[in-house]
Amino acid sequence: MREENEKRRTTVTINGQKYVISGRTDVGHIIEVANLVDKKMKEMRNANPYLDKMQLAVLAAVNISDEYLRLKKQVEKERLKKDGEK
Amino acid sequence: MREENEKRRTTVTINGQKYVISGRTDVGHIIEVANLVDKKMKEMRNANPYLDKMQLAVLAAVNISDEYLRLKKQVEKERLKKDGEK
Repeated sequence: MREENEKRRTTVTINGQKYVISGRTDVGHIIEVANLVDKKMKEMRNANPYLDKMQLAVLAAVNISDEYLRLKKQVEKERLKKDGEK
Repeated sequence: MREENEKRRTTVTINGQKYVISGRTDVGHIIEVANLVDKKMKEMRNANPYLDKMQLAVLAAVNISDEYLRLKKQVEKERLKKDGEK
């Protein structure tokens, strides 16, 4: 709970549709996040033009999750290695 | 290009719909990725019951991207710090 920070509402456009993102993060980070999702949805649309918007959004989420979990595993591996060196 | 590895097709269920994920990654990782997206979509649905499936998928992607970019920035910061210590 970080009640001391004011919650901001930022409007972003993803795949041509507006979304209001509410959070305590700075606006620059929210825009970066929205741009990543927008970019991934465009990539998915180009690779799978027969899919509908919902399926494209799910595949964009799958794609980003793949990168996220790979990075997370790599970080955990490096931490374990570092702990082993101590 | 990693043409030496065979491309596998794995069927996963996300938000009640089946998706075929094609890639050279191991099946365990693909299932982990699909489970993360499915979990996030459920969280988004519980928090925003008035949104449609496409909007929920986009918000799940936004949420995962947020975590991914935070971790990426943290890793980059730690690497810069480590390089500075050399």
